[in-house]
Amino acid sequence: MNFKMVGRILSLILAVEAVLMLPAVGICFFDKDYFVAACFGVTIVITAVIAGILAIFGRDARMEFYAREGFVSVGLCWILMSLMGCLPFYFSRQIPNFIDALFEIVSGFTTTGSSIIPNVELLSRGLLYWRSFSHWIGGMGVLVFLLAIVPLNGKNAGFTLHLMRAESPGPDVGKLAPKMRETAKILYIIYIALTVLDFLFLLMGGMSVFDSVCTAFGTAGTGGFGVRADSIASYSPYLQNVTTVFMLLFGINFTVYYLLLLKNFKQALKDEEIHLYLGFFAVATIIITGNIAKMYPSIGDAARHAAFQVASIMTTTGFATTNFDNWPVFSKTILLMLMIPGACAGSTGGGMKWARINILTKTLVRNIRRMLHPRRVERIRVNSNVIDEKVVDNTSAYLAAYCAIAVASLLVISFDGLTMESNISAVIACFNNIGPGFAQVGPEMNFAIYSPLSKIVLIFDMLAGRLEILPILILFTKHTWTVSKR
Amino acid sequence: MNFKMVGRILSLILAVEAVLMLPAVGICFFDKDYFVAACFGVTIVITAVIAGILAIFGRDARMEFYAREGFVSVGLCWILMSLMGCLPFYFSRQIPNFIDALFEIVSGFTTTGSSIIPNVELLSRGLLYWRSFSHWIGGMGVLVFLLAIVPLNGKNAGFTLHLMRAESPGPDVGKLAPKMRETAKILYIIYIALTVLDFLFLLMGGMSVFDSVCTAFGTAGTGGFGVRADSIASYSPYLQNVTTVFMLLFGINFTVYYLLLLKNFKQALKDEEIHLYLGFFAVATIIITGNIAKMYPSIGDAARHAAFQVASIMTTTGFATTNFDNWPVFSKTILLMLMIPGACAGSTGGGMKWARINILTKTLVRNIRRMLHPRRVERIRVNSNVIDEKVVDNTSAYLAAYCAIAVASLLVISFDGLTMESNISAVIACFNNIGPGFAQVGPEMNFAIYSPLSKIVLIFDMLAGRLEILPILILFTKHTWTVSKR
Repeated sequence: MNFKMVGRILSLILAVEAVLMLPAVGICFFDKDYFVAACFGVTIVITAVIAGILAIFGRDARMEFYAREGFVSVGLCWILMSLMGCLPFYFSRQIPNFIDALFEIVSGFTTTGSSIIPNVELLSRGLLYWRSFSHWIGGMGVLVFLLAIVPLNGKNAGFTLHLMRAESPGPDVGKLAPKMRETAKILYIIYIALTVLDFLFLLMGGMSVFDSVCTAFGTAGTGGFGVRADSIASYSPYLQNVTTVFMLLFGINFTVYYLLLLKNFKQALKDEEIHLYLGFFAVATIIITGNIAKMYPSIGDAARHAAFQVASIMTTTGFATTNFDNWPVFSKTILLMLMIPGACAGSTGGGMKWARINILTKTLVRNIRRMLHPRRVERIRVNSNVIDEKVVDNTSAYLAAYCAIAVASLLVISFDGLTMESNISAVIACFNNIGPGFAQVGPEMNFAIYSPLSKIVLIFDMLAGRLEILPILILFTKHTWTVSKR
Repeated sequence: MNFKMVGRILSLILAVEAVLMLPAVGICFFDKDYFVAACFGVTIVITAVIAGILAIFGRDARMEFYAREGFVSVGLCWILMSLMGCLPFYFSRQIPNFIDALFEIVSGFTTTGSSIIPNVELLSRGLLYWRSFSHWIGGMGVLVFLLAIVPLNGKNAGFTLHLMRAESPGPDVGKLAPKMRETAKILYIIYIALTVLDFLFLLMGGMSVFDSVCTAFGTAGTGGFGVRADSIASYSPYLQNVTTVFMLLFGINFTVYYLLLLKNFKQALKDEEIHLYLGFFAVATIIITGNIAKMYPSIGDAARHAAFQVASIMTTTGFATTNFDNWPVFSKTILLMLMIPGACAGSTGGGMKWARINILTKTLVRNIRRMLHPRRVERIRVNSNVIDEKVVDNTSAYLAAYCAIAVASLLVISFDGLTMESNISAVIACFNNIGPGFAQVGPEMNFAIYSPLSKIVLIFDMLAGRLEILPILILFTKHTWTVSKR
C-alpha cells in the first residue's frame, strides 16, 4: 500500500473542501450571522492544517498506484471529508450531537437526504446552503472534480483510472475521452450546465434565489435535502413538475448527454439502460396514479404527485410533494421495489443501477439456458456489445455483498424496537441513498429516533451505497493496513 | 422435448400417489367417516384413470432424456400431484373453495405448512392424516421415491440423474452410490428410520398414536402442519424438546448420516455447511433467549421457546410453541433473516440452503480479491474440494432469480392491502417453505385473508421454492412447448 500517495490525495481533497466552504461563509456574512461564519472559519482552518500535515507526509510519494490504492483513497477521502464537513453543524450547536452532525453531512455528501433535523426551517441559511451544496459536491464525486482541475499525474495512466473507477457509480466506468482528465472535465461541464438550467427554470417559476440554488443542488445531486420542512409540497405545481423533469434528467447516464452533444443520436437512443429506466418510470407512474386517484381532487393532481414521487424515488433524490406514507400499501410497495435499482449508472443517482439489473437479468437467462444446454457457449451483450465476463462476475458479487450488508444492517437497527416496516425502509433508503423511508422514518418523520449505534450503521450504509461497497469494505480488511514491501 | 417419456413418468407418479392415499381411506373407515372415505375413493379413481391415459400416451416413448426433460417432468409432476391431492379436501367440502384446497395441499407437498384453515381441529382425521402425510411425501421427494422403487431405466445413465437433480434441494446432488437408484434407496431408508425414531420418542412422551404419526410426518418433512390449532404449544416441554432435536436432525444433509453409517466420522464432521447451520442455530438461540427472557417465567422456558422457534424457522418447518409474533422486533428480525438461508442442502428443509450461502460468501471474497489483484487465479473450495465454476455461476443465478421472484410476488400480493410486514413475511415464508409469517399471517393467524390471485402467486412461490425455481420457471418458457424435431 502506497500510503504516502494516498496521503497526498487526501491532502488535495481537504484543500478543495476548505475552498468549497467559502460560499457558505459569504452567506453567513450577508445574513450578519457572524457566529456561524466563525464556526465555518474554524472548520476551514482545521481542514487546512490537516491538509498541510498530509501534504508534508506525502511529499516524497512514489508514483506506483494500483486498484487497491484507488479504492482505499476514495474510501478514506469520503470519511475524512465527512468528518470535516460536519464540524460547522456541531460547532454552531445547531446539531449539538456529533453523531447526528456526521449523519447529516454523510447523508449530504452521499446524496441520500435522510435527515435527523425535525424542522430545517430553524437552521441558519449558511448551514442550509452547505447542506444542499454537499449534495452537489457528492453527486458527481469530489475525486472526479479533483481529476478535472488538477493535473495529478502524466506518467501513470492507470492512476486516474483507478480513482475514477472507485468513485463513479455503475458496473463499469465510461471513458468519454482518451484521457481520464478530459472525461472528468466533460462530465463536470455537463453537470454544471444542467444545474444552471434547473436553477433558471425554478427562478422563472417564482422561487426565491436562495431556494432555487438549494433546490437545484438537491436535484442535481439527486440528494433530497430541501429548505422547507414540507420538502417541495408547498411550492407551485409548475415548480414541482420542473423538479420532476430535472430529477429524471440527472438520473440518466451522463454519457448519453455527451453522445447527444456529439450528435450521435442513434447510439444515445438505443441505450438499453435508459429504456429500462424510463419504461419503469412510465409504468409505475400510471399504476400509482390509478391506485391513488381517489385521494386527490383530480386525476391530474394524482398524476403529478405520482410522477414526482416515482421520479424522486427512482433517481434516489427523496424530495416529496405529499406524504406518500399515507398511500395504499400497493403503491408503497412499488416505491419500495423501485428504491433498489435506483437510477442509471454514470448518473448522480444511487441504488443498484439499472445497468446492473440489466446484466443480472441477462446472466440469469444465460445461466438457465446453460443448465439446459450445457455445451452451448453464450456471451452476454448489452447495447449489442459483448460484456467482459469479469464485469458479469463482479455484478453477481455486488448483488451478494448488497444482500449481506442489507441483512446485517437490518439486524443491528432492529434492536431499537421500531417497526419492521420502518427498519426495512430505513436500511433500503440509506443504502440506496434515497432519503425518507416509510412509517417511523416516512417523509414527514426523521431519523433522529434511532440510537447512536443504529445511526453509525446507517452512516456506513450511506457511504457503502454511494461508493458501491468496495471502497468502504476494503478499509475493514487487515490486508489494507499491513505494510507490504512494495 | 420428449413428451411421451414425460407422460410415462407422470403416469407412474400418479399411480404412486393413488396408492399413497389408501392409508387415509383406512383411517376414515376406522372413524366410520364414510363420506370422507368416499371422497378419497373418488379421488383415487380419477387419479388412476388419468394415470392410465398418460400411460397409454407414453407407451412407445423413446429413451432420449436430457436435463430439459428432467426439469419439465419434475415441474409437471408436482403440479399434477397437487391438483389430485387437493380433491379430497374439495369434494368433502371441508375446504369448500378449490384455490384454498390447492393452496393447502401445495403447502403440504412443498413442506411449507402455511394454512388457510382457521381451526384444524374441526377437520376429519383422514384429511388431517393426508395433510401431514403430504409433508412426508414431499420432504424427500416423490420422484426420488419413484426412483428408489421402480427400475426406470437401465440403459440411459443420465435419465435418473436428471430427475434426481431437478427434485433434490441444494446446489449439487450428492451421489452416495455409483447408481442413482441405490442413492435414492439409501436416502429413503435413512428417512424412514429417522421418522420411526421420532415417532417412538413422541409416543414415549405420552402423545397419542395419531398425534405422534402426524407430528413425526410434519417434523420429518420439515413441513409444519400440526393436528392442534395451537401447533405444538399445548404439548409438554419434553415433547417440544424432542421436536426441536428432530427438526434440527431433518435439516441436516442426509449425506452426513450416510457417512456416519459408513463410520467415516472425520469427513462427516468437517462438513462446512453443518458448521454454519449449527453455529447459526446456537448463536441465534442464545441471543433470542436473552432478548425474550423477561417474557417467560424462567430463563429455561425462554431458552426452550427460543431453541424451538429458531430450529423451526431454520429448518423451515414452521411449528410454533408460542406466538413469536409478540416477540420484540429484534428477535423477529433474526427469525426473518434465518428464513432465507433455511436448512442444509440434501435435507428435507427448504430455503436457499447454507451450502449456497457458503458458496456465495466465498465467491464474494474471491471476486473482491480479484478486483484488487486482477491477475491472480483463485478457485473456490468447499470442504477442501475445488467447486466447479458452473456451480458457482448457477448459485449466483439462483440468487438473482430468487430476488426477482420475491420482488414480483411481493408486488402482486401487496394489492390486497395487508400491512407491508405481513406481505414481506408471507412471501418469504411461502417461498422458503416455512409456513407462518408475522403480523396478519403470524403463527396464530392464517393465509385465508389473501385474495385468490395472491393465493395463486403464493402457490407458485411454494412450488418454485421447493423445486428451487428452475423446474417451475421452465414451464413458462415458449421453448418448452414448441415441438422440436428431436
